[in-house]
Amino acid sequence: MPWPAHIALHDGRLLLTKQFDIDVTGQAGHRVYDAAGRLLQNLQRRTGVVFEQHVLAKDSNDPHATLIIHVRRPAVLKIGEDESYRLHVDSQHAVLTATDGLGALHGLQTFLQLVQADPAGHYLPAVDIRDKPRFKWRGLMVDVARHFEPMNVIERNLRGMAAVKLNVLHLHLSDNQGFRIQSKVYPELTAEGSRGQYFTQTQIKTIIRYADDRGIIVVPEFDLPAHAVSWLVSHPELASAPGPYHLYTHFGGKNPAFDPSNPETYRFLGGFFREMASLFPGDYIHIGGDENSGQQWNNNPYIQAYMQPSIPSDEALQTQFIQKLARLINADGKQVIGWDEILQPGLPKGAVIQVWRGKESLDKAAREGHPTILSNGYYLDLLYPADHYYQNDPIPAGTHLKPPVRKNILGGEAEMWSELVRPATIDSRIWPNAAAIAERLWSPPSVRDVPWMYRRLRVENLRLEALGLTQIRNQQVLLRQLAGGYDVSPLQVLVDVISPVRGYQRGASGNYTIYSPLSSIADAATGNPWAAIHFNEAVKQFTAHPEAATEQKIRAYLQQWSASDPALEALIHRSPALHPVTPLAQSLLALSKVGLQALDYIDQRQPAPYAWARQTTTDFLQAREPAAETKLRIVDAVEQLVVMSVKAGASDAPRAKEKISDSIDSPARKSGAEFGDLLNGEAGLGKSVGGYRGGYGLAQASVLGVPRERWSEFPGDIAVQVRPAAGPELQPFGKRHIDRDWLSQ
Amino acid sequence: MPWPAHIALHDGRLLLTKQFDIDVTGQAGHRVYDAAGRLLQNLQRRTGVVFEQHVLAKDSNDPHATLIIHVRRPAVLKIGEDESYRLHVDSQHAVLTATDGLGALHGLQTFLQLVQADPAGHYLPAVDIRDKPRFKWRGLMVDVARHFEPMNVIERNLRGMAAVKLNVLHLHLSDNQGFRIQSKVYPELTAEGSRGQYFTQTQIKTIIRYADDRGIIVVPEFDLPAHAVSWLVSHPELASAPGPYHLYTHFGGKNPAFDPSNPETYRFLGGFFREMASLFPGDYIHIGGDENSGQQWNNNPYIQAYMQPSIPSDEALQTQFIQKLARLINADGKQVIGWDEILQPGLPKGAVIQVWRGKESLDKAAREGHPTILSNGYYLDLLYPADHYYQNDPIPAGTHLKPPVRKNILGGEAEMWSELVRPATIDSRIWPNAAAIAERLWSPPSVRDVPWMYRRLRVENLRLEALGLTQIRNQQVLLRQLAGGYDVSPLQVLVDVISPVRGYQRGASGNYTIYSPLSSIADAATGNPWAAIHFNEAVKQFTAHPEAATEQKIRAYLQQWSASDPALEALIHRSPALHPVTPLAQSLLALSKVGLQALDYIDQRQPAPYAWARQTTTDFLQAREPAAETKLRIVDAVEQLVVMSVKAGASDAPRAKEKISDSIDSPARKSGAEFGDLLNGEAGLGKSVGGYRGGYGLAQASVLGVPRERWSEFPGDIAVQVRPAAGPELQPFGKRHIDRDWLSQ
Repeated sequence: MPWPAHIALHDGRLLLTKQFDIDVTGQAGHRVYDAAGRLLQNLQRRTGVVFEQHVLAKDSNDPHATLIIHVRRPAVLKIGEDESYRLHVDSQHAVLTATDGLGALHGLQTFLQLVQADPAGHYLPAVDIRDKPRFKWRGLMVDVARHFEPMNVIERNLRGMAAVKLNVLHLHLSDNQGFRIQSKVYPELTAEGSRGQYFTQTQIKTIIRYADDRGIIVVPEFDLPAHAVSWLVSHPELASAPGPYHLYTHFGGKNPAFDPSNPETYRFLGGFFREMASLFPGDYIHIGGDENSGQQWNNNPYIQAYMQPSIPSDEALQTQFIQKLARLINADGKQVIGWDEILQPGLPKGAVIQVWRGKESLDKAAREGHPTILSNGYYLDLLYPADHYYQNDPIPAGTHLKPPVRKNILGGEAEMWSELVRPATIDSRIWPNAAAIAERLWSPPSVRDVPWMYRRLRVENLRLEALGLTQIRNQQVLLRQLAGGYDVSPLQVLVDVISPVRGYQRGASGNYTIYSPLSSIADAATGNPWAAIHFNEAVKQFTAHPEAATEQKIRAYLQQWSASDPALEALIHRSPALHPVTPLAQSLLALSKVGLQALDYIDQRQPAPYAWARQTTTDFLQAREPAAETKLRIVDAVEQLVVMSVKAGASDAPRAKEKISDSIDSPARKSGAEFGDLLNGEAGLGKSVGGYRGGYGLAQASVLGVPRERWSEFPGDIAVQVRPAAGPELQPFGKRHIDRDWLSQ
Repeated sequence: MPWPAHIALHDGRLLLTKQFDIDVTGQAGHRVYDAAGRLLQNLQRRTGVVFEQHVLAKDSNDPHATLIIHVRRPAVLKIGEDESYRLHVDSQHAVLTATDGLGALHGLQTFLQLVQADPAGHYLPAVDIRDKPRFKWRGLMVDVARHFEPMNVIERNLRGMAAVKLNVLHLHLSDNQGFRIQSKVYPELTAEGSRGQYFTQTQIKTIIRYADDRGIIVVPEFDLPAHAVSWLVSHPELASAPGPYHLYTHFGGKNPAFDPSNPETYRFLGGFFREMASLFPGDYIHIGGDENSGQQWNNNPYIQAYMQPSIPSDEALQTQFIQKLARLINADGKQVIGWDEILQPGLPKGAVIQVWRGKESLDKAAREGHPTILSNGYYLDLLYPADHYYQNDPIPAGTHLKPPVRKNILGGEAEMWSELVRPATIDSRIWPNAAAIAERLWSPPSVRDVPWMYRRLRVENLRLEALGLTQIRNQQVLLRQLAGGYDVSPLQVLVDVISPVRGYQRGASGNYTIYSPLSSIADAATGNPWAAIHFNEAVKQFTAHPEAATEQKIRAYLQQWSASDPALEALIHRSPALHPVTPLAQSLLALSKVGLQALDYIDQRQPAPYAWARQTTTDFLQAREPAAETKLRIVDAVEQLVVMSVKAGASDAPRAKEKISDSIDSPARKSGAEFGDLLNGEAGLGKSVGGYRGGYGLAQASVLGVPRERWSEFPGDIAVQVRPAAGPELQPFGKRHIDRDWLSQ
């Protein structure tokens, strides 16, 4: 992972023995040598085979070398360089060839991924791979401003990035909560604006070198003109409103901005960017440009006067500001990048647009001739499951963009905003989802099967943690802490079927500041609860093809959940930090029983009784409620089992389900009555199950949870948001209109 | 942990709520403020309670403050400062008072340790504590030379040290494998002698500051005159034999030494130590002085000439060398420390002796008036269980040392030599054993109950990992890697009952170099296999007081081991890196069955049949064999069950056992016949069980494993090394003389 562009498997295998050695030929450059040395160590650790040889041969032309690397020229670290490579493995040796050192680095990662084991030992299968990336910009942004992330966090994530062939690390270095890089020209920026948490120039050089060694470009972001509190703490004279300014301890809120009418602003920033341009060897400097409300500008009479008569709007003023910065930065030999707000008439053509607000901006910017990067849909901090990110394609099938316009789309970037993470938890938000995004950006668009991706992602996740990433191990630390010294295994069972509330729900609570402990179950849980993912996939298979083996898998999960309940509830009772989790445990037990009962009915090949199915509504309603900022992620699947049980013995069931999903496969807005009729008309099952429907419409129908004949009483419109079952979660439409009392009438 | 000097528990509790706040009064100094701020964050993370207040009050005299800290003067970081504190907790608030800031830091750690939870919430019990350390030097040495350990390893270990009130971090900064600190006077030392792995001066300042914030003194060690390869790589002209010198990739071997006859040596070292003396603010510089074979000196005619006529021996030459260094270092305002080899006639009185070779040196040095530090018996890298270290007292009960001599014993230091660890595994060797040592050095000597220590150590271990230490989480990472993606739980069951071979066995194999992967089961296993510790303790209880509840615990373990065997053996089969573990898995299954059978016999209150007990010999013999550099740690306990089953129904069994242990409670050397007769005579059970004996002599008897009447044929002497069951492992005496064929005759 990412899956190669072309791969052909052959018979045979290359065994890994202690005689493993490497010969490097051609003009490899230091990066390839270093990477080959790391490969030796990595192979030893994974396989337990201790090699006799630890020194790489150069041009030995030893025909017995296990891995021969041939590189035509050392890597040049630029966007758009030749990153292709070929890897041939047969039973005698492996041969890796690449024009550019970058390709060789990628090929070495592929080599590591090919290593397999069976009882006879470790080996690589015989294979021919020709590989190159689909997009040239494959980035990861880490926000080190909201919560500072120290050196070792950055370094281990760079190792992870290299493993999945990402090539740009974008550091969000300033925001309202802190200024995170030492300036020698303006040391006051960190002295007053960082709470002591920042990268020294020595450290940032170490990061750049560490990234460079792995073929990764570092792009620094200094967010301007808004998100500027940490600058203005030491330079209130450059602000659009009088100070003093204090570092934010909260997130969100107002976004003070630089004064674009003050020539001193440009003198100051010119000096700053000149320093940064010499520090960062890459071609790009990111200047932010997002979320400037213009509020301070509108209320500053001097700025208003400056705008008259030639600058008609805040947007135009911001564009002028960006233009001036771009000129300064271009003069330092760098290109600017900005968030998509900077896409305004008059923006210099070379400016790169990073799109976060919506994909429309991507197409628009590309059409206008700007190099563009997609980030919308790649926000790792929103904690969607991997397939959500995976299915987000910068250039989706059926695009209307013409080939020359498509060329402007450089690629994409995974974004890790850090309001709700700390060093101990950040990896669990980035990984393994960034690996899914990496595959989307590297592999051909035809590589898109979700269950197959999940199977490979799970393996990749273990491989990534062996590089020092903490996404698995630190979850267990948090669980041990939450369990307060008691046996943690029942809690592990729970956390494997829940994930945090998605999107901005958690942050929007307003409960979080830089002092928040971030050690709750929502911090331990991740976007990919593996047991839920496997269970849901099994249910999906089973409803399509009811086979005994699949049913057995499903039963095993349900029985495990049910069996672990007494221990889980006892643990929760004893551990006060776990008390908020109680409803999730109760729902997991309730749904396990419901699911097992549904399977029993299905096995009997008789429709489940109406009264029982109707009764489960209460369980499903309860189970969809978030608790402790997390949600159970097996509810839809259990409900599908109930639907299946209701239809047990009916021959048209699969067809009916498909018809429903076809008919409501796109967002729609309907009244309760219309929606009910739609489902009813298509499924032909309405009356008998009192609101239950097959297929993708399930979440809606069960939240409604009332008999069909009362749907017309439902007040107002119903927003029906339908997506494939493994996609982003279904909206609990109209939920606020329904209360329990009314339901129990 | 460490247990306080005086503690009185009262009724009542101080609840932790979101209104928690702290008032600091007196002259606290920045260390106490910072520590109180960290305490807030730590409390939030552990309890999940989010405090409203994050700013510490100063002299608010708020009577409602939850924690009031009063300190008379800021901490002065010196050995021997007043480290005492008092902590009073009642239902209204907690009051921490200390003369010196150091005491307040310790008191804050105790405050954190008092936090408990029950279903009603988190609280501190009402308590009065008066506490102070028994010894003033409570150190941890980390060898960063053999394997370099980067900043974040050091920082997290400093957090752990502070948590258990250790106050000296000793860094072993140079050895044959690398020179680990930047010198600006001699930059070639790291440029040529570090393989790029060293602390810059900025980094070491960060470490010193980080330690200082937590009340910890950093002592640098530069090992001289031997262990000097990493110096001599860039300065072969200072060596006692001509170069060139190359950094060692292996461990052990010859120890090239500086030329003590060369005036340039002292000029060079003088410049170096002057630089280091200004870098390290503490009072001590460690100059090593260990393991100089004198070989190079003996073979260098110039040095031999230099020694004539006034320097009679290599020891005297080394003493002269040390004296000269001591003068240089004293001139820089620092005192020297050295390993106990430096204790030779003529050594300056102020020099501190760190004792590693044997406790005799400790007493000798103290008698001669030197300040001394005990490290012998505190070698963490030898991987003994915690109680081994715990029972090692610098001034044991019944010491013959007079009080003024005892005063010279400053304390002790846990030693972490790094030949066989890397950053991912080092914590699992240091922790939690260093916490047991910390208690030995802090708490009154009467605090010494081993089972009670283990119960507290397990809790402390979880608390330590919440500080970022990796001893638990990284074991699981290694196991996941070894399991190659398969379910890891059967392997976890195994690793919980094994530990690596102890002492120098692993290193002595000669298989290890700086390139070794250190990712095998021996790297995952630790000195404290918790399941084995609990099982062994339960068996010990049960053989003394055969109660049903204890038996149930024992049975549960045996059944779990037996039940997990099929999954474990399947996993081992599939994962080639696990193949070497096979014998351990087989033995665990065999002993589980033996143990369960023994319990059945015991329950029947009839002696187990001779033939069966005799037959188990084969299982015990096999189970004592190391495999994959690890050993099963439940063998003695299972054997005790067999012995108990053989004696089932006999009324004199406990007495017989005690008599054996009494009679052979000290090392002894006897012939096979003598030993056999000894056991036989005391126990009076010989013939009936064919070599099985009760109590401490078990390991010997079962290895012998032959009928009593043949003991006299046993060739040669038998070394009988007997220690309490929970102590260091019993020696498999005479094993090399016995082969299976002979046994099966």
